[in-house]
Amino acid sequence: MITSMGNAQVKQLLQWQKKAKQRNKDGIFLVEGIRMSAEVPKERLQNVYVSKSFYEKKKEILDKMQIPCEILADDVFARVSDTQTPQGILCVVKQSIYKFEEVTGGKRVHLMVLDNLQDPGNLGTIFRTAEGAGVSGIILSKDCVDIYNPKTIRSTMGAIYRMPFIYVEDLPEACALLKKKEICLYAAHLDGAHFYDEEDYSGGCAFLIGNEGNGLRDEVAACADVRIKIPMHGQVESLNAAVAASILMYEVCRQRRKE
Amino acid sequence: MITSMGNAQVKQLLQWQKKAKQRNKDGIFLVEGIRMSAEVPKERLQNVYVSKSFYEKKKEILDKMQIPCEILADDVFARVSDTQTPQGILCVVKQSIYKFEEVTGGKRVHLMVLDNLQDPGNLGTIFRTAEGAGVSGIILSKDCVDIYNPKTIRSTMGAIYRMPFIYVEDLPEACALLKKKEICLYAAHLDGAHFYDEEDYSGGCAFLIGNEGNGLRDEVAACADVRIKIPMHGQVESLNAAVAASILMYEVCRQRRKE
Repeated sequence: MITSMGNAQVKQLLQWQKKAKQRNKDGIFLVEGIRMSAEVPKERLQNVYVSKSFYEKKKEILDKMQIPCEILADDVFARVSDTQTPQGILCVVKQSIYKFEEVTGGKRVHLMVLDNLQDPGNLGTIFRTAEGAGVSGIILSKDCVDIYNPKTIRSTMGAIYRMPFIYVEDLPEACALLKKKEICLYAAHLDGAHFYDEEDYSGGCAFLIGNEGNGLRDEVAACADVRIKIPMHGQVESLNAAVAASILMYEVCRQRRKE
Repeated sequence: MITSMGNAQVKQLLQWQKKAKQRNKDGIFLVEGIRMSAEVPKERLQNVYVSKSFYEKKKEILDKMQIPCEILADDVFARVSDTQTPQGILCVVKQSIYKFEEVTGGKRVHLMVLDNLQDPGNLGTIFRTAEGAGVSGIILSKDCVDIYNPKTIRSTMGAIYRMPFIYVEDLPEACALLKKKEICLYAAHLDGAHFYDEEDYSGGCAFLIGNEGNGLRDEVAACADVRIKIPMHGQVESLNAAVAASILMYEVCRQRRKE
């Protein structure tokens, strides 16, 4: 059992917990909790750490996972955990690096393109809903919040393991590549000429979703083939970014189910 | 200018910030930030507090609001604020008490019924989306998170001032009253017989939304006339509560727009 904060593994975990740069350099990320740990694809699971209490009370879960784990004293575990009331299990998982072609390939793709999204919860929720709606891939501008942020990971509810995604340096350039593939680009925009449900999404489509406070950047909005809007009653000026994205994703899902 | 934490008004603000019971007893709540302050209905605005820096830099905003304000020293303001980086303006606002009849009355009502919803952000986001989708009222079980929680208020983006709502002691009893009014009750439920978009929402309708982790309580789900489900691809077992509610709200909005 590891009981010291000076332990090399503990120091490493702390670095990964706090520093996105270090996570990306080492190609790993951390997940916590029973549910998120149980869903880690086996070939990507690198290490498992549990608290002493967890080990004593929930040994059967570990037996099921059939993987050796390292035990940390409860107070040490609490320090490496990102949560205020840790469940007591933490996994080191290998990042998946997808190629642009993997994220955007296939027939009748359904893509979400995120421009400078900043809220970790929103990003995770978009991943979760995207898997549910049958989205085929997600493209993120390089200044979006880190998908490996602990709060984002929790909000994905496991979709992070399964949804192909890629961060791109230049979003307008990525949009141009999508157009070459004859994928139709829709921008959720207040200036939309049509309501979102008046378009036909039976072909390959991609939806541009903007930043929470500022919406889409002009140069990104300019990439769209069609601007669509979500109708809003009352004095509402915009919807939450994850909500707007979800309404669009499920409209595609609805139309394709009707075919 | 108030410079002491011992000041009676400051003590009062702190109580209201921290204690739901005290807020409800006094029938007030606190909102922060320029946007949320600007949208307070005039007749409900009781007091305005600003930080010294805010007063010096943004006097024109206060002139527009045409309301006398109390100035707090910056460090005092920071202590009464709920946010880590306060904008420097805080309003004391009178709560709106709606009657059941006001929330549920009218023609072709569109209601959301929330059962033990716990996440402040989800509740606020549901209010925001509800206003956008043209929902007529929201009914909450008494054990839902407090609508006057500062995080909830922020997430409503002002819908809290405009959306009629009521907390009820007994949710099944409230459901029975809705049925008497011939409002059709739909439960979002994994056991749903139909997809959510296969029902006709042209008449009065109400949607039961359950707790984030556990879904609807059995006795609440039993109140529904129809169980509907949102299709889910992949390994997704459920959607975020605010996302699920939003998809349903906008389906009603979509159908009614087509009439």
